[in-house]
Amino acid sequence: MKLNSLFKHHHRARRIVTKGFYSLFTEYETPKLVLIHSSTLTILLRIMQIILLIYSILYLLLYEKGYQKQDTSIVSSFTLKVKGVGFVQTVTNETIIIDVADYIIPPSENDAIFIMSNFIQTSQTRSQCAEAVSLEEARCKVDDDCLNKAVSSKASGRWTGRCLITPSVGVMNTTANLTQQSTGLCEYAGWCPAENDEVQAMYVNDFLNFTIFIKNFIEFPTFRVKHKNMVDNLKTCIFHPKHSPDCPIFSLGYILNQAEKDPKERELMLRYGGVISIKLDWDCNLDRKINLCKPEYTFVRLDVPFREKPFSRGFNFRYASHWKYHGVNHRTLMKAYGLRLIMAVSGKAGKFDPITLSLNTGSLVGIFGLATFFCDIILLHLSKQSRNYRRHVFETVHLKTRTESIVGQRRNTANADVSTNSHLTVAHETIPRFVRRSTSLRPLTLADIERSPESQPV
Amino acid sequence: MKLNSLFKHHHRARRIVTKGFYSLFTEYETPKLVLIHSSTLTILLRIMQIILLIYSILYLLLYEKGYQKQDTSIVSSFTLKVKGVGFVQTVTNETIIIDVADYIIPPSENDAIFIMSNFIQTSQTRSQCAEAVSLEEARCKVDDDCLNKAVSSKASGRWTGRCLITPSVGVMNTTANLTQQSTGLCEYAGWCPAENDEVQAMYVNDFLNFTIFIKNFIEFPTFRVKHKNMVDNLKTCIFHPKHSPDCPIFSLGYILNQAEKDPKERELMLRYGGVISIKLDWDCNLDRKINLCKPEYTFVRLDVPFREKPFSRGFNFRYASHWKYHGVNHRTLMKAYGLRLIMAVSGKAGKFDPITLSLNTGSLVGIFGLATFFCDIILLHLSKQSRNYRRHVFETVHLKTRTESIVGQRRNTANADVSTNSHLTVAHETIPRFVRRSTSLRPLTLADIERSPESQPV
Amino acid sequence: MKLNSLFKHHHRARRIVTKGFYSLFTEYETPKLVLIHSSTLTILLRIMQIILLIYSILYLLLYEKGYQKQDTSIVSSFTLKVKGVGFVQTVTNETIIIDVADYIIPPSENDAIFIMSNFIQTSQTRSQCAEAVSLEEARCKVDDDCLNKAVSSKASGRWTGRCLITPSVGVMNTTANLTQQSTGLCEYAGWCPAENDEVQAMYVNDFLNFTIFIKNFIEFPTFRVKHKNMVDNLKTCIFHPKHSPDCPIFSLGYILNQAEKDPKERELMLRYGGVISIKLDWDCNLDRKINLCKPEYTFVRLDVPFREKPFSRGFNFRYASHWKYHGVNHRTLMKAYGLRLIMAVSGKAGKFDPITLSLNTGSLVGIFGLATFFCDIILLHLSKQSRNYRRHVFETVHLKTRTESIVGQRRNTANADVSTNSHLTVAHETIPRFVRRSTSLRPLTLADIERSPESQPV
Repeated sequence: MKLNSLFKHHHRARRIVTKGFYSLFTEYETPKLVLIHSSTLTILLRIMQIILLIYSILYLLLYEKGYQKQDTSIVSSFTLKVKGVGFVQTVTNETIIIDVADYIIPPSENDAIFIMSNFIQTSQTRSQCAEAVSLEEARCKVDDDCLNKAVSSKASGRWTGRCLITPSVGVMNTTANLTQQSTGLCEYAGWCPAENDEVQAMYVNDFLNFTIFIKNFIEFPTFRVKHKNMVDNLKTCIFHPKHSPDCPIFSLGYILNQAEKDPKERELMLRYGGVISIKLDWDCNLDRKINLCKPEYTFVRLDVPFREKPFSRGFNFRYASHWKYHGVNHRTLMKAYGLRLIMAVSGKAGKFDPITLSLNTGSLVGIFGLATFFCDIILLHLSKQSRNYRRHVFETVHLKTRTESIVGQRRNTANADVSTNSHLTVAHETIPRFVRRSTSLRPLTLADIERSPESQPV
Repeated sequence: MKLNSLFKHHHRARRIVTKGFYSLFTEYETPKLVLIHSSTLTILLRIMQIILLIYSILYLLLYEKGYQKQDTSIVSSFTLKVKGVGFVQTVTNETIIIDVADYIIPPSENDAIFIMSNFIQTSQTRSQCAEAVSLEEARCKVDDDCLNKAVSSKASGRWTGRCLITPSVGVMNTTANLTQQSTGLCEYAGWCPAENDEVQAMYVNDFLNFTIFIKNFIEFPTFRVKHKNMVDNLKTCIFHPKHSPDCPIFSLGYILNQAEKDPKERELMLRYGGVISIKLDWDCNLDRKINLCKPEYTFVRLDVPFREKPFSRGFNFRYASHWKYHGVNHRTLMKAYGLRLIMAVSGKAGKFDPITLSLNTGSLVGIFGLATFFCDIILLHLSKQSRNYRRHVFETVHLKTRTESIVGQRRNTANADVSTNSHLTVAHETIPRFVRRSTSLRPLTLADIERSPESQPV
Repeated sequence: MKLNSLFKHHHRARRIVTKGFYSLFTEYETPKLVLIHSSTLTILLRIMQIILLIYSILYLLLYEKGYQKQDTSIVSSFTLKVKGVGFVQTVTNETIIIDVADYIIPPSENDAIFIMSNFIQTSQTRSQCAEAVSLEEARCKVDDDCLNKAVSSKASGRWTGRCLITPSVGVMNTTANLTQQSTGLCEYAGWCPAENDEVQAMYVNDFLNFTIFIKNFIEFPTFRVKHKNMVDNLKTCIFHPKHSPDCPIFSLGYILNQAEKDPKERELMLRYGGVISIKLDWDCNLDRKINLCKPEYTFVRLDVPFREKPFSRGFNFRYASHWKYHGVNHRTLMKAYGLRLIMAVSGKAGKFDPITLSLNTGSLVGIFGLATFFCDIILLHLSKQSRNYRRHVFETVHLKTRTESIVGQRRNTANADVSTNSHLTVAHETIPRFVRRSTSLRPLTLADIERSPESQPV
């Protein structure tokens, strides 16, 4: 007996599983659709769909290249090479030649370069001497003037607290006529003499004819693509936007012109220095040949224009060469004004990518559903005949226990007057577990039970 | 006849196309919905929907700014300017002034700066001499000790293979009391004398009062927005987190304090050098005024703390000034300890972007569907009454060829006993190509055929 | 009366609102589904769904880590330390020791370093002298040859316009046998004598044994995670891909070997210089321990190989030490050839993120719907029995005003001949506002009206 029932049970379980598998591969589900003849609504829907379709395909997929995986992370390396010989005309009408080893300081920097256009040179030794004439705070009459003052950050060294009444009244005259009498300058200990800002500028002539060769090596690590800004058969050239747009050699004059349109400002930039950002903008479509991808050069001035009277003017820094002579430390202090060129790279690369395409398509399908969503709201809630539409679109199901069902039924019957026919009542009496309006109007048969796969006899 | 049939054919084709177009703009499709009265399930669905809605709108769209296109690629340029005068108190009680041209090495770097806080200075010429006392490997008694040893990477030059028994026992005493007797040092050829690590430190006093002016110029290339870390009307100031949070001038003391809280470590950093990363973090909401976007400064120590006894301690490097005197090459070797400040920028910018908004909305619509998806699973498979629900939600269609239909019908009839009524059987006999439960209970009329637009007579 | 009607109105409004709320939490909507028994279509759908499921879960979620927020923006800082002593064998068989202060120029750079492997040293003073022999353009016979020529960018200074007929015919012989007779060189004013490219190379021996210690500090600002490329208990080591893959100290020989496989090219790189990019590629899974995240080092040669006869060969630059001797400016000009190592970092980090997961899931749900979408198209439009399927899937609704309805009805009746039965006609006569095929075959009752919740009596 037991074996028999076990066998039966086993047989039954296997049948259910088999049945489940069978139905998994034979029963295709699709939503039942209600087809409503309403030209207004349909046209509205179609217009919305067409707009979304055009927007999706034209804009998102084609214009914004939604089929491409895009990446903006870029690895970049630069090497820079400046060429040209400049010269300085000194006050004594001497010509000093300035070559690349003189005007590039430090000799190499990463992603930047400084090219000196003007400088103040001071030969110094360590001792004690008067402060620079240009330093207002250093003016004194007695020693106390130098003792009590907080040490300025512009001081050339540590103030000793003595006031040096300089006999060089000539210098005093030019800068401070009002304080003609016995005015002195505070003494400091440090590198002497102090740098004098007001000496004649040592302009580097021919500066604008110098050329800079910009080599840029980039990589898009996401796509493992390497590229550079030089064409294969490069020849001696100077960049010109029209005649040689592929040449990576620029004259400083061109760069300065691009960065600053005002000739007066340009003049001041050569005198007091300036900072220019040279940006290479790469926009590579990796679905095409990599050689077609070329950078766009932009030159932007970074330092605040002189006309705006900035807090910090131009660009300069100091450096020194040190040596010993007869056992004494000497240095040549250089205050270097000039152009600091800072290289920058921005870029993006795109490449066809099925994942990106499918994710974007997935998003678009979601957007597409919005059209139907809004039209359904209009149909079912906002239109004049929405009540009637609802009647067709919705099919109400009340699922209740036997007692509830009868009570519910009674109420329904009472409310609906003639609506319930004998069939419905019978249905509820025999199979009383549910009330469904649309099906309640036909006699309920075993076919209904059969529909649920589990109860189907073999 | 032919012309007539062609005309007819043409006429018919045109009618179908016209019909298709007509139905395209008049027939609105919407899924038929089943309305189930079940408070449990509905409340569950509503709770899930409310959670998803709150999450979507509050978190994704508002908090995470899902309506903004966000970009983290940022182009940055720095210029740095250090001010201040330091001094060194030597063993002989001499005061050596160290100014900006002395303590910044090299004079300019891109996105970084080194400020010397301590140094060892050695005047050298090329010759042959004993190794540094501090180099353990250089200790020797006989020449063979220097020949057989592998050349250390710390050697000051190429070892000649001779052991110099130095008479300077005084030096020996201090460092190696155990090896008091005739211990020597290996001889090397190179710059002499060797640098001596154990001389008194040349601290740069006033170092912590130096100020550094950090100018940062950024660009978000995706949005073509440029910005800088300086307010328009900048005045002389020192950064203070409360009193002047917009001032881009920092004292080295403040930076060091921020980067390292332990005063003992700070002391050691000034002695042996250290590396500090100064990071400017920009978080720009480009939907608001660009001036409101200000960087957040963070100072992080990068070198491993001394208390952890690191493999590589602090930060130092060597550089030299070269000169000739009486035809002999001289150099002053400097071993510079100090703070290396490395500038870093991170940032993101967001700007309202309809594409991003629509793609995110599309994704959210997809997420929203999940609530219905899970509730449907509960409804149709997990709830107690799922069998009854399924009966209402599903409408089964068997579509078969005539023979299959009859066979299938027979089986169905056999299986379902009383389930099939005469209507159904008739339906299958007359239009036997399909069996649909819900429609099988009414007589099939031409209206059914008419429903498919192609067959409708004109 | 008024109060009564107001009360009634109020009562009614409250009832509607209550009813709305009630139905919001009790009426569960779900699409009515049509279950079609068609194994072909179902199997097609299941295959499509399985493919999409496997693709979604395996590829997008697991392989591409769709559950992680990924970020490629990385903040990086480097410090580099080179060790080793090289030597140069001069023509006169002298050995010159070159140490770290000599061969690293400038002493520190940000994210890059230059290590000199060969150099040309020239001691110069400012004066006037003959151009370099190697400069073709400087060959002259008379002064006019030097006057008329455009100044080459390779000139060592400003040409004075004089042609110096040099007595040093020996030099002439070697380079220009054809122009043996009285050939001279143009004179220039500048640093003299001119640098001579053709002197014997000053190779730095032992160069390939130098070691470079690369310290890299990174941060993923999005995740606020910091990391470095050094293990905690670092010991003296040299990187070896198998034996010590975690060691951040590399020998220059290894780096050069990795960057250039051709020994001949390597030889030329040491002679004429080269540029090598050292890239650290970080791929951090932040769901695991951060210590497991280690960089991958790649060494790529950036300068164009010599065999391709590039426009710009190798890598070199000039720098000078300046000093004064007996009041005269002197400098030692160095043309330094060597390896320029440029550090680069690329990286991405991923961390589990519910937002990313939900957005990706949302997209996938959208994709998933595509399977049903395509199968529905086949079902309703492309399959042989699509006309029959359509009959079951669609439920047509004609909603018209009374007059329209009758006219429409008339037309329908005329067209459909026998299709309309009396039931339908009656339905249209009594409740003439809509025609729905599937419901038209039964008498319309008040139950239909009751279905819309608002009209249901309490």
